[in-house]
Amino acid sequence: MTVRVDLNISLDGFATTTDQTPENPFGEDWGRLTEAYVATRTFRERVLHDTSGAGTTGVDDAYAQAYFADVAAEIMGAGMFGLHAHGDDPGWRGWWGEEPPFHVPVFVLTHRPRPSIEFANGTVFHFLEASPEEALARATDAASGGDVRIGGGPTTIRPFLKAGLVDRLHVAIAPILLGRGIRLWDELRGLEAGYTVTAETAESGTVHLTFAR
Amino acid sequence: MTVRVDLNISLDGFATTTDQTPENPFGEDWGRLTEAYVATRTFRERVLHDTSGAGTTGVDDAYAQAYFADVAAEIMGAGMFGLHAHGDDPGWRGWWGEEPPFHVPVFVLTHRPRPSIEFANGTVFHFLEASPEEALARATDAASGGDVRIGGGPTTIRPFLKAGLVDRLHVAIAPILLGRGIRLWDELRGLEAGYTVTAETAESGTVHLTFAR
Repeated sequence: MTVRVDLNISLDGFATTTDQTPENPFGEDWGRLTEAYVATRTFRERVLHDTSGAGTTGVDDAYAQAYFADVAAEIMGAGMFGLHAHGDDPGWRGWWGEEPPFHVPVFVLTHRPRPSIEFANGTVFHFLEASPEEALARATDAASGGDVRIGGGPTTIRPFLKAGLVDRLHVAIAPILLGRGIRLWDELRGLEAGYTVTAETAESGTVHLTFAR
Repeated sequence: MTVRVDLNISLDGFATTTDQTPENPFGEDWGRLTEAYVATRTFRERVLHDTSGAGTTGVDDAYAQAYFADVAAEIMGAGMFGLHAHGDDPGWRGWWGEEPPFHVPVFVLTHRPRPSIEFANGTVFHFLEASPEEALARATDAASGGDVRIGGGPTTIRPFLKAGLVDRLHVAIAPILLGRGIRLWDELRGLEAGYTVTAETAESGTVHLTFAR
């Protein structure tokens, strides 16, 4: 059982974008940050339900396949589920429509817990106020020996990294500079200790960097 | 003729360290940031004058060889020459002793110009107060068709990057998180426009990333 993190970041370290406007609710940066990942055949199949076989099949796609493999429970922050934007709506069911691409129990960390939401495809969102250690214990239990992913965003992930709870950190570094957003790497001096760090470059120019124990 | 930048940075983007103390005048971070570069055969020959043939000969060394090739003039900030620490000493001749590894004219940007310093090996330090464009014109003239390097530090380099004066930017990204220092990437949103970005991973785990026009 492995505790994993997988994130897309820019060369200047931004993992969450902050250029959203009412006219452009996702901003322009998010699409550029995730461009190589969204272009993969695996993303198109798993998230867009496009079974035409379209999409890239190189190094980026190999990481996209690994992204979905073996994860049996997920933890995410309230912002990633959409509670910062939609928390006042008791009917909010996340960004992903009726086919969320998780297929496993997802534990959403929030100071305002709400009833669980279950989907036909196996995705169940649970809401809890918990420390990283407590949330990981819940998710580990639910995963029954499978892997647990800390999904994001960076503000949620950092305490898990600092507490030494993450076994494998994979960052896909897009070769772009955003100059704004929320950084993954703040206050993580010395994180590399105890990990082996490897890197591989994809055809898209994305650098896949992995910290593994 | 190419205007070049070559820098060692950490994964969290720090190009200059700030952990110097009177007891440890270079700090502990600088050695870790430059470890893979200092280990190369080329660095040992060119900077340490070690002709024993010791040192690594892989990808890092190929970049170290390229570092020294074709550069016919260099521009650096006052801090890189040592004027922030030693500016009150009129006899200060730089950090590098009597064999500075440049062998070409070096233009040091400072608000307090001083007389030029010439070394037997071809290195000449000139001191000038100038805009990036003016300094580059001086260095280009001195280079007589050879390449010009903007040597550092990041605070000196950033205005040259912002002004679109750099043809090739090579960063050697050490797989470590320093958590402190001076960042290269601040306020460089969109720098990648107009460049092709490529990356290559060395045996040391260093990721060599190149922005080329």
